[in-house]
Amino acid sequence: MGDKLRAAILGATGLVGQMFVKLLSEHPLFEISYLAASEKRVGKRYGDEVRWVLDGDVPEQVKELTLDSVDPDKIKNASVDVVFSALPSSVAGNIEIELAKKGLTVVSNASPLRLDPDIPLIIPEINWEHMKLLDVQRRRRGWSGAIVKNSNCTTAILVLSLKPLMDLAGLEEIYVTTMQAVSGAGYSGVPSVAIIDNIIPFIEKEEDKVVNESRKILGRLAGDHVVPADFKIYATTTRVPVIHGHLEVVYTRLRREVDIKDVVEAWSRFKGLPQEVGAWLAPKQPVIVRWEADRPQPRLDRDAELGMAVSVGRFEILENRLLRYVVLGHNLVRGAAGNTILIAELMAREGLL
Amino acid sequence: MGDKLRAAILGATGLVGQMFVKLLSEHPLFEISYLAASEKRVGKRYGDEVRWVLDGDVPEQVKELTLDSVDPDKIKNASVDVVFSALPSSVAGNIEIELAKKGLTVVSNASPLRLDPDIPLIIPEINWEHMKLLDVQRRRRGWSGAIVKNSNCTTAILVLSLKPLMDLAGLEEIYVTTMQAVSGAGYSGVPSVAIIDNIIPFIEKEEDKVVNESRKILGRLAGDHVVPADFKIYATTTRVPVIHGHLEVVYTRLRREVDIKDVVEAWSRFKGLPQEVGAWLAPKQPVIVRWEADRPQPRLDRDAELGMAVSVGRFEILENRLLRYVVLGHNLVRGAAGNTILIAELMAREGLL
Amino acid sequence: MGDKLRAAILGATGLVGQMFVKLLSEHPLFEISYLAASEKRVGKRYGDEVRWVLDGDVPEQVKELTLDSVDPDKIKNASVDVVFSALPSSVAGNIEIELAKKGLTVVSNASPLRLDPDIPLIIPEINWEHMKLLDVQRRRRGWSGAIVKNSNCTTAILVLSLKPLMDLAGLEEIYVTTMQAVSGAGYSGVPSVAIIDNIIPFIEKEEDKVVNESRKILGRLAGDHVVPADFKIYATTTRVPVIHGHLEVVYTRLRREVDIKDVVEAWSRFKGLPQEVGAWLAPKQPVIVRWEADRPQPRLDRDAELGMAVSVGRFEILENRLLRYVVLGHNLVRGAAGNTILIAELMAREGLL
Amino acid sequence: MGDKLRAAILGATGLVGQMFVKLLSEHPLFEISYLAASEKRVGKRYGDEVRWVLDGDVPEQVKELTLDSVDPDKIKNASVDVVFSALPSSVAGNIEIELAKKGLTVVSNASPLRLDPDIPLIIPEINWEHMKLLDVQRRRRGWSGAIVKNSNCTTAILVLSLKPLMDLAGLEEIYVTTMQAVSGAGYSGVPSVAIIDNIIPFIEKEEDKVVNESRKILGRLAGDHVVPADFKIYATTTRVPVIHGHLEVVYTRLRREVDIKDVVEAWSRFKGLPQEVGAWLAPKQPVIVRWEADRPQPRLDRDAELGMAVSVGRFEILENRLLRYVVLGHNLVRGAAGNTILIAELMAREGLL
Repeated sequence: MGDKLRAAILGATGLVGQMFVKLLSEHPLFEISYLAASEKRVGKRYGDEVRWVLDGDVPEQVKELTLDSVDPDKIKNASVDVVFSALPSSVAGNIEIELAKKGLTVVSNASPLRLDPDIPLIIPEINWEHMKLLDVQRRRRGWSGAIVKNSNCTTAILVLSLKPLMDLAGLEEIYVTTMQAVSGAGYSGVPSVAIIDNIIPFIEKEEDKVVNESRKILGRLAGDHVVPADFKIYATTTRVPVIHGHLEVVYTRLRREVDIKDVVEAWSRFKGLPQEVGAWLAPKQPVIVRWEADRPQPRLDRDAELGMAVSVGRFEILENRLLRYVVLGHNLVRGAAGNTILIAELMAREGLL
Repeated sequence: MGDKLRAAILGATGLVGQMFVKLLSEHPLFEISYLAASEKRVGKRYGDEVRWVLDGDVPEQVKELTLDSVDPDKIKNASVDVVFSALPSSVAGNIEIELAKKGLTVVSNASPLRLDPDIPLIIPEINWEHMKLLDVQRRRRGWSGAIVKNSNCTTAILVLSLKPLMDLAGLEEIYVTTMQAVSGAGYSGVPSVAIIDNIIPFIEKEEDKVVNESRKILGRLAGDHVVPADFKIYATTTRVPVIHGHLEVVYTRLRREVDIKDVVEAWSRFKGLPQEVGAWLAPKQPVIVRWEADRPQPRLDRDAELGMAVSVGRFEILENRLLRYVVLGHNLVRGAAGNTILIAELMAREGLL
Repeated sequence: MGDKLRAAILGATGLVGQMFVKLLSEHPLFEISYLAASEKRVGKRYGDEVRWVLDGDVPEQVKELTLDSVDPDKIKNASVDVVFSALPSSVAGNIEIELAKKGLTVVSNASPLRLDPDIPLIIPEINWEHMKLLDVQRRRRGWSGAIVKNSNCTTAILVLSLKPLMDLAGLEEIYVTTMQAVSGAGYSGVPSVAIIDNIIPFIEKEEDKVVNESRKILGRLAGDHVVPADFKIYATTTRVPVIHGHLEVVYTRLRREVDIKDVVEAWSRFKGLPQEVGAWLAPKQPVIVRWEADRPQPRLDRDAELGMAVSVGRFEILENRLLRYVVLGHNLVRGAAGNTILIAELMAREGLL
Repeated sequence: MGDKLRAAILGATGLVGQMFVKLLSEHPLFEISYLAASEKRVGKRYGDEVRWVLDGDVPEQVKELTLDSVDPDKIKNASVDVVFSALPSSVAGNIEIELAKKGLTVVSNASPLRLDPDIPLIIPEINWEHMKLLDVQRRRRGWSGAIVKNSNCTTAILVLSLKPLMDLAGLEEIYVTTMQAVSGAGYSGVPSVAIIDNIIPFIEKEEDKVVNESRKILGRLAGDHVVPADFKIYATTTRVPVIHGHLEVVYTRLRREVDIKDVVEAWSRFKGLPQEVGAWLAPKQPVIVRWEADRPQPRLDRDAELGMAVSVGRFEILENRLLRYVVLGHNLVRGAAGNTILIAELMAREGLL
């Protein structure tokens, strides 16, 4: 393991943290060398502190690791190569900035800073070019380290399905309604007494994230900033009694008429840097097209390509430029830990770590 | 009970049939005098044959009733005043027509014939005027009886929320995404192995029903037929792990700009014939406005006003004439048995039974 | 409402607190005059602070009430006639003792003190006689007020089914396995991510409660203390994805052979003080016998007699003195708020309030 | 693939059939060469006819296979080496007997014939010796082929946990209460409207199967028949809203006192023929001991060792010889297709195919 990159995970006991642990424990490029949790857990064994809810068990080699603090100095001294942040948004911003000041590279799933002009917000297949903002970031902020952001989970899944359409025919407006899994809210986020036999048609701040982040990710790099994409997008986000996997119903008006065959081909052929370089977590096909009348379904399709692919189905040209489809992805993998690790892997390959 | 109207229920053991039994057993105007089920059950005790899934128990007085056949002659001889049909759509059409020929009045929840020009498709608060089609029906078909239809469950809930908006500002286009309860598919319709921890983003024929029935119900009576409403409507229907209660997310572009206050007032003030005459199953408010950020929810709101009211929430003017809201209703009550019984009660009051 | 008894509810926003609110708001003998919650909520409107999860809405008259503190002096000054406690067990003990010292009568659902020798632990149909411990309590502790306890929810349901058997044939040993609803753990007790498509075969401290409380409730009053019943009882408690209603599978070896008819008759005839005096929350039949092969079921039977009756089914003499059956009850009603209010109503009728 | 054994699957579209397809499609010893389904599906593509509910997709190479008939002559002509039966019990008996008469070896998951004295009912780790009944079977019935049976799913999981205890200290009596997943009832077995937010405390014929099959499997071969084990066993079986994985709570009185350490060691060390020969589907440890207070859980533990291991937890000596524990296993794998394939693999290795 000597020549693997040393990774720290902040917020390692939470749900996204667990997925980081699961995916990194099998990753050929990284080794987990620092696990951070809240103060009261420092010094304790990861296997004892985590309330593991992913299928199977805590990876054997991680079980015995001792939880450490999120203190930037300590992390600095641990000489890690990359810091993965799954911190709660209430504390993430300051800690991540401290780490970047100290020269650490933070690849983060936390929401603060995502919309800052000099922070790359990256889905590698879509906008790897936005990584050039790191130069702007270092120049402006004077950091020796860096912060790169993963997007909101719902947004990540959505934009992967939108990008091929945008390239094909342009996007004029988008109406999206989501049905989101409970794991998207964290371990204690959705009490069972609130969601069994029920739907909660509201997720705090989620709709704004979908709107703003999708425009930034699909936007155009213009020197030192991103010009947001100019489509209109309206989002309604709901919580449903599903463990993992966000399903999204999308109506989108394209800028020119297309044939459904072109749409399917655009999705099927869609590829990006991760596929070109054959990254470990790169799905062969980032967008899988399902022809069955009743797919995609969360339980059947969320784990497609280890959870790194999104699945689209129920596509239909309803009228002229109006396309309807359904897209599904794994909120903890492509929507969180998986996409974040993919960013870091590509950074490593490009000498950015 | 001597002067109550004698009611037959066809398809009495199914889920909609159970709701007919529950509501009619407490109804001051009707008494259940004939229960029909499939041939193999004829002669057996209702309490033994029904797999009751509604809360509580089979009403005591109905438990002991003997199941009878759907044979039109037998029903005719039972001298019932009204026939409620919860028959499966595969057999409903022919049987209902036979009954109407024999002089019986059939108020039906089954889908066949709903779009026939001379068949009234009724949500009493919205289009009671369409009952005038009964004259056309009798004239054209030469029936001494009659057939009146209740709409598809998803449609009933949707149009109750749309009608006040149409009256207020006109409807240009509607994008609706539904999350429908499993009881909408009948007792065996959705196997648990298919829906626990899952969503099925497809319900056969449902989207066409929403499109066509909503246009007819909200259409204008023009002599011997209904001119469908001229809005565009796009529907995506999905099945979720919820027992009762369909939730629908609606984006609608109105024909003129309105203030959100006007929208709320339009919903709150909305009333129709059932409220005017004080029908037993008439909700005081057909459309209940919920101001909480996270309402309506199926488990909390489906039973509002005995399940006869729909609840709206999350309303917001997104841009100019574009309104977004969520509407919820009980698919077996307002969406099926309840609305059907309400039609019959009003027919009785108007001397049409 | 002037001559109703004034009731305080401590812990009014929690799940048991919500059930207290629901039941008391309809109760002919009590009026809610004081609602207490944790400090951060004091001064706020109940309707705004409660995350209501019971069917329907917060009762209109309670919505507007202002939350007050659990401070014993304040409660004392509010001159309430009875204090219902739904406090978390971590804080309940001290507060309740303070209140009793100040002369208030506390009828409590919280677990501390339940096994103290001078604290009556009451299921009114079973052991109302144990209320005589109040004299011992006052004498020993010098309180002008008093504390009476409701039992653990699982225990309450179990002992209602056991008492008729004990009277009939004596109990030698009991093996019980429970499947408990998530509402038994409080609003945030069971995260959905932990329980959807799952069972958790462990509930902290629950098994000891079942063992010790059932022996006390079914024990014999001997002067100043209760001699615990001398049967052996073994309990395994699990959590299942059900909202309300605990189901318990019971194997019990009786002390003498009986016929199953005698068992059924013992359950059916079982009555106690609440039935004799016709208390408002008294179920006509505390133990309902279900003959169907597949009952009782939580969703169908939990609300029997407003949730105050338990339902038994699947009874069978397996061998000689070995009886197997299943019992189900509503954990928040008979297992918590309902039984507690019933105790208070009977105290009022007997001049103990 | 030329030298793999050719396998037929009867009932290939059902849930157990799907698991046969999944496991055999990856098995190094077998290839799927014949897929049989009901008449109406014959001639159709497997991928089109199956309503796949297992995670992921139909294996690519199986998707294109054409469904064939269960006609014994046709199967005979297909020159398969082994027939796996997942037929419904209503038709399984006759078809399997016809196949055995024609010289085919049937390894069957269907319930008919399981208790016949000359039919081996096998859990390979426990009673492989019972395979000697095949000689008796051939002699008595004059078959050139043979029938071997897999046990009921609940029983398979239970006896794997009981066998080490029986060997350690003898079994006197067993009280078992099960919480069974919906997939145990087949695709349409449990309607969602019956089980969401609910428990059904009854599974037809299941309790007798547990009692009789566990006695046979744990019985002693005595020449031409099995002498059933002489413990008393009482079973209560319930259905819960869980997709896969049966959880069973066991109280058992051993024949002599033991230390809990001995119990744990007996489970941990337990091994049998599959482990000795290193069969492909053999779990390294057939019984996994979980020390956490809240394990095993269906969602976390059902897939342990590909679903071929059972997990035990919550073990405790309650009193003298009375042991309590919880055991969990995957009903479709160890409880059905997995165990059946393991039998066939061992038969192949021993020259019985």
